[in-house]
Amino acid sequence: MGIACRDLAAKIAFYESVFGLTVVSVETNEDQGVREAMLAVTEDAPGPGTSYVQLLEPLRPDTPVGRFLGRRGEGVHHVGYGVADLTASMAGLQAAGIRLLDRRPRHGSLGASIAFLHPSDVGGVLTELVQSAAPLPRRNAGNSN
Amino acid sequence: MGIACRDLAAKIAFYESVFGLTVVSVETNEDQGVREAMLAVTEDAPGPGTSYVQLLEPLRPDTPVGRFLGRRGEGVHHVGYGVADLTASMAGLQAAGIRLLDRRPRHGSLGASIAFLHPSDVGGVLTELVQSAAPLPRRNAGNSN
Repeated sequence: MGIACRDLAAKIAFYESVFGLTVVSVETNEDQGVREAMLAVTEDAPGPGTSYVQLLEPLRPDTPVGRFLGRRGEGVHHVGYGVADLTASMAGLQAAGIRLLDRRPRHGSLGASIAFLHPSDVGGVLTELVQSAAPLPRRNAGNSN
Repeated sequence: MGIACRDLAAKIAFYESVFGLTVVSVETNEDQGVREAMLAVTEDAPGPGTSYVQLLEPLRPDTPVGRFLGRRGEGVHHVGYGVADLTASMAGLQAAGIRLLDRRPRHGSLGASIAFLHPSDVGGVLTELVQSAAPLPRRNAGNSN
């Protein structure tokens, strides 16, 4: 779950102290114009099934997250699902009539490959597919979309 | 993650076929004025760490989710976190200055007890605490908020 915010450091401190989440990474993605933090929603070591809160602060107002903040204010920006094979998932979704915002995978947090789906084709939810850089052994055995 | 929609049956079919999620329950909550489905985001049997997509269709326009749809259209309505002891978590959050929308726990999906936090105190995110009816053995060992 990606949450747009105006002050990343303050929101990290909030989610750590109030909800007890654990920061896994903080990085800048120039391509997407954001500085972002990944926080694991787990008391155990993060693994293949772990959920994350991703906090997103725009680098500039003229970026996707900057425009979102200007339009709607702070709040949930997108939802991401882990997949085993991003290219296969993209092809499968496109065949199912879902429009992709990305024609090719691009770089996400933690070395992941990502692609976004058109929110109008997913019930108003900006949806991201995430293929982790680390292998996801349990998911490789199943379907990829 | 709770997603507001206009046609629950259609959205269930969509999330099952397109994303491969598994329906765990479909129920009506008269108290909240919604018909809702819980779908597990896992290929394994749902367990303590499982994430869920909750699809919400309002029973009437003059309900919280009905008003949300009228105001913003379909999309992410709220985010829920599992807690071991809801009453303790509510007290802890209130002590941290977070306003609660519910003074007392009320009934949620699958027999859970729930309470909502004020979105303005959680960076624009309507946030729900969920104490599962089934025991959460791993979480009972840790902190509850």
